Amino acid sequence: MPEEQVDGRRRVVIESLSPQIDYGRFAIKRVVGETVVVEATVFADGHDQVACQLLYWRENDEAVQSSPMIPVGNDRWRGEFPVLNVGRYEYTIEGWIDRFKTWRGDLIKRIDAGQDVHIDLLIGAQIIQDVAARATGEDADLLRRCVHRLRDKNDNESRKNAALDVELLNAVQRYPERHLVTQHEKRLAVVVDREKARFSTWYEVFPRSCSPESGRHGTLRDCEAKLPYIASMGFDVVYLPPIHPIGHTFRKGKNNSVSAQPDDVGSPWAIGSEEGGHTSIHPELGTQEDFKKFISSANGYGLEVALDIAFQCTPDHPYVKQHPEWFRTRPDGTIQYSENPPKLYQDIFPLDFESPEWHALWIELKDVVLFWIKQGVRIFRVDNPHTKPFSFWEWLIKEIKEKYPEVLFLAEAFTRPHVMYRLAKIGFSQSYTYFAWRNTKQELTDYFNELTQTELREYFRSNLWPNTPDILPEFLQVGGRPAFMIRFILAATLGASYGIYGPAFELCENAPYQSGSEEYLNSEKYELKHRDLDSAWSLKDLIARINRIRKQNLALQSDRNLRFHSTDNPSLICYSKANEDLSNIIIVVVNLDSIHAQAGWIDLDLNSLGLDAAHSFEVHDLLGEGRYLWQGARNYVELLPESLPAHILQVRRWVRTETDFDYYL
Amino acid sequence: MPEEQVDGRRRVVIESLSPQIDYGRFAIKRVVGETVVVEATVFADGHDQVACQLLYWRENDEAVQSSPMIPVGNDRWRGEFPVLNVGRYEYTIEGWIDRFKTWRGDLIKRIDAGQDVHIDLLIGAQIIQDVAARATGEDADLLRRCVHRLRDKNDNESRKNAALDVELLNAVQRYPERHLVTQHEKRLAVVVDREKARFSTWYEVFPRSCSPESGRHGTLRDCEAKLPYIASMGFDVVYLPPIHPIGHTFRKGKNNSVSAQPDDVGSPWAIGSEEGGHTSIHPELGTQEDFKKFISSANGYGLEVALDIAFQCTPDHPYVKQHPEWFRTRPDGTIQYSENPPKLYQDIFPLDFESPEWHALWIELKDVVLFWIKQGVRIFRVDNPHTKPFSFWEWLIKEIKEKYPEVLFLAEAFTRPHVMYRLAKIGFSQSYTYFAWRNTKQELTDYFNELTQTELREYFRSNLWPNTPDILPEFLQVGGRPAFMIRFILAATLGASYGIYGPAFELCENAPYQSGSEEYLNSEKYELKHRDLDSAWSLKDLIARINRIRKQNLALQSDRNLRFHSTDNPSLICYSKANEDLSNIIIVVVNLDSIHAQAGWIDLDLNSLGLDAAHSFEVHDLLGEGRYLWQGARNYVELLPESLPAHILQVRRWVRTETDFDYYL
Repeated sequence: MPEEQVDGRRRVVIESLSPQIDYGRFAIKRVVGETVVVEATVFADGHDQVACQLLYWRENDEAVQSSPMIPVGNDRWRGEFPVLNVGRYEYTIEGWIDRFKTWRGDLIKRIDAGQDVHIDLLIGAQIIQDVAARATGEDADLLRRCVHRLRDKNDNESRKNAALDVELLNAVQRYPERHLVTQHEKRLAVVVDREKARFSTWYEVFPRSCSPESGRHGTLRDCEAKLPYIASMGFDVVYLPPIHPIGHTFRKGKNNSVSAQPDDVGSPWAIGSEEGGHTSIHPELGTQEDFKKFISSANGYGLEVALDIAFQCTPDHPYVKQHPEWFRTRPDGTIQYSENPPKLYQDIFPLDFESPEWHALWIELKDVVLFWIKQGVRIFRVDNPHTKPFSFWEWLIKEIKEKYPEVLFLAEAFTRPHVMYRLAKIGFSQSYTYFAWRNTKQELTDYFNELTQTELREYFRSNLWPNTPDILPEFLQVGGRPAFMIRFILAATLGASYGIYGPAFELCENAPYQSGSEEYLNSEKYELKHRDLDSAWSLKDLIARINRIRKQNLALQSDRNLRFHSTDNPSLICYSKANEDLSNIIIVVVNLDSIHAQAGWIDLDLNSLGLDAAHSFEVHDLLGEGRYLWQGARNYVELLPESLPAHILQVRRWVRTETDFDYYL
Repeated sequence: MPEEQVDGRRRVVIESLSPQIDYGRFAIKRVVGETVVVEATVFADGHDQVACQLLYWRENDEAVQSSPMIPVGNDRWRGEFPVLNVGRYEYTIEGWIDRFKTWRGDLIKRIDAGQDVHIDLLIGAQIIQDVAARATGEDADLLRRCVHRLRDKNDNESRKNAALDVELLNAVQRYPERHLVTQHEKRLAVVVDREKARFSTWYEVFPRSCSPESGRHGTLRDCEAKLPYIASMGFDVVYLPPIHPIGHTFRKGKNNSVSAQPDDVGSPWAIGSEEGGHTSIHPELGTQEDFKKFISSANGYGLEVALDIAFQCTPDHPYVKQHPEWFRTRPDGTIQYSENPPKLYQDIFPLDFESPEWHALWIELKDVVLFWIKQGVRIFRVDNPHTKPFSFWEWLIKEIKEKYPEVLFLAEAFTRPHVMYRLAKIGFSQSYTYFAWRNTKQELTDYFNELTQTELREYFRSNLWPNTPDILPEFLQVGGRPAFMIRFILAATLGASYGIYGPAFELCENAPYQSGSEEYLNSEKYELKHRDLDSAWSLKDLIARINRIRKQNLALQSDRNLRFHSTDNPSLICYSKANEDLSNIIIVVVNLDSIHAQAGWIDLDLNSLGLDAAHSFEVHDLLGEGRYLWQGARNYVELLPESLPAHILQVRRWVRTETDFDYYL
């Protein structure tokens, strides 16, 4: 027996709804003002025409809105809806047999074949009468008049005309029948973030190195004084490593030595001392008041402050005494320190997420985040999220964003791909990437095609870092100043979001701790630094220029639009970004060789750029100021690592109008 | 607050479990004796080692069995289980943190680094003690002894040896901890059919054309007399078009003319007359007794009988009077006939699946199928299933197979791809394909790669027909006898299941109704045929030979193993099939040109065939009897359409053993 509750007459089926992540288990991501383009395969048995529509609503909002879907071939249908507010939206689609359209399409064929359509017109009258019952106002009148005309036995020509009237068609479509409708079995979610989730420019700085005097521990106030410098380079996020009290038990000395000297300052990631834990500020940096002032001052410069969340404790952290149940105890009664055997990190106690008291631990850690939100922080860079359970982060981020949907989380997970992608799925707004280790044309092309042209783009937002305090890539170690220029240009143009660890980056600091290591020599992680920010060697002007270009060109503020173009030289990489209406097109060509000049021919995919081979177009190098007249796909470039390792070309097209030649962007 | 019912300590996540169709909405398909290879991405936060296992059980069977899974790289794990019985199985996987393996792996690193492992050995003792509590017999003793040794403070070397003992490792693995286990959220289904679902050889024949005398209406007994002929060609399914009473109202005449002559026999698909409907036999064909005898006789020849299910009625069908509610009524009170405007099929009334009485209709149609099952039919060829709702078929097939899991359904849907694939998803055991219209190397390669190398192979089992009573493809119309040979060889070697509409096929009947039409001239659908089956022109010997080759070579009895190889001539297509252990390898090369001899070089993917470039191998042409010594990927072939349009090569390898050269298959 058919199950009673199922109406076997629902004939429309809906398959392969996209986008959806793991069959709706996770939300896709968008930012405010974007649209969600939804596709599905929708069909029914037989020859009847189907119709479908997209349904969407803000989460917890009763008002369901609908949007039409149109067929795009092979039973695929497409619709879209805008996301205008930060928060969560949901969407699904529904389909039904379109009786009117089926009837109308068949009627045209019958009339064309010269068949008697007397009965068919009566069938149509019945369908339209049903629509009229749902219609209101003028539409209802129009429909009723039409029913009357279709039933008029005396005037066959007039009946046919009435049936095929486009106004009738339009009126009927305003009252979809939705008879025996099939709704897709899943409601899919979109997390809508503010624009910064997609387009952001980060600068990491250690406040304690911001002292104007060499040798003195810098403070938040010193760091505040550097804000104009940071802002002048065009950054919009200033990210501080942990600002909490630093433990002294097993403190690491300079260059990560196991025995610290009395004046060694320790690592900011060794959190917790008698002076407090994750909600305290290291006394040498200043007070909560200083921090609030820092935030407010940063905001004045157009900078947001991102704080580090590193959920780990030193042996001196208050939690160790207050909540020993949150740590794992060894058979000798000591607390288990961090390890990645054979490496031991005796200065760090990991939190035990398998503790029977996991529940209280989760609440406490959420309270830490809420504490800093109350101080004004809206962006968190999360340290090693992949060493805490995925379920914890999923819960934490959902809880926080329910109340503060504007909060963003950057996942600092440098680990296996599936782990990194899972963190993005469960809610991290942005993610560090493997960019630091992708140097060749093939490596960059493969990786960025994966990030921007596969399903990943629905939930994994990359944030590209050419360096971090933990990563001085080999390419930067060996390639001199041009290597820093090249990697910076790649980060800032391949990624709508990128960041640098400064001032180490702009000053081109490139000495590794030892050969084969990616650690910095005399790393700022373990000691204070004092630097000359006005060095002629500094890349600050290049950085400022490129950040200006990013702000002025919408094309560079998104990653979905990335497209690679062929070149005949393996050291030359060429890619473009364009905004949706192609009014802003940027073509970037980078010489990946930091030593030699490289020249060659690029081969543009003109179609993707809306250019035609028959007309020339001007490209204006926003970086080098040159202007070149190009035509067709194949064009020549020559790039010198020392002076001009890249072109950032804006396409300008001449078009002929009726009266004149117009110059437009 | 974290949800109380969720244990936040479950750290393992499971993603991308395959195979699964539409996230488990539909079952995958297998036949008895096959294995299901299951893969999933399984990982956890941090550095702990994970473990996972495959769980499977027969539907409605309490006994869950498990099967180990092993890592295959990049966090993917693989396991497999056998399906030994016809019916439904279910499977899922579960994963957990492997505390013992994590501890053991870390211990090895610590010992290698010369670290003090005193405490670590105590930690291990605790883990092993927990395992011992679950263990029984000798294992429990071994584990307890090990705990004791690990806690022995006096002998560190012995403790280390005890910890790393492989016997300990093996014993522990027999008692998986499954602490805080994560089970995949879906139970996935497998429909297991008998072998014929995968490997079958069909012959379609009109019983009414089986009379030995020209002009007389053939009977089931006449058809029975042809069974030795059919069996001699090596077929194992004999498929009969509908055998029910044929309507007379609006009966179609010869060549589908709208006005039948009094002696016109009508189309077997115009089902129903005063003499009965879907459970009756056309009196001119014989009786139910004759049919039962036909089945039993066929079985004696190794043939199964497939019956046609065509759920449609003539105006004379008993349903029309008994159940007018199952048909749609037009405004003039008449019943709606079939249409595909502007084409009208006034001799056919479609059943109205949107009838308020749909429920009773479903039950009735199921009873029709059950009726024929009771007569001994176990295979149904379903006519135009795509013109009835998917939900109906899904229900019907599930209901039937619950009681008769050995029953097979072939979907005769020639329509859009998503519709055809949906029918396979919802349960049809086999499906007609676009094979009849795929002629060129590119067309065949693309299509068969889609069918056999994508997810389709999990649920869409193709049955290849070079012709049907409705389809005389252009290639056969214009290519003469060689065209029939080529298309037959392709069908029988590309597809583990194929069928021909005979004797029209083996006699190379190739006259179309008119130019540009795929209908046969004087189609058997509307008139009786009388043929000389012993014509020298007949392909029956070729057919018999190839069906013998199919039976003798396991490689040809499956489709998953199909692989195309390059050739340098667009008229030469080359592909191979091999069984799993590569003990049976068949390489097929077909000349797609029915007019000209074609020669060229093929370029084998040696790796897929387990062949190495350094050693020569013999290929034995099972069709042409030739033997060739080949070496490496590149080998020459020459094929003549009239005499030898194809090679069906069995690979034989010489291998050198220690004592001699051995010849093996």
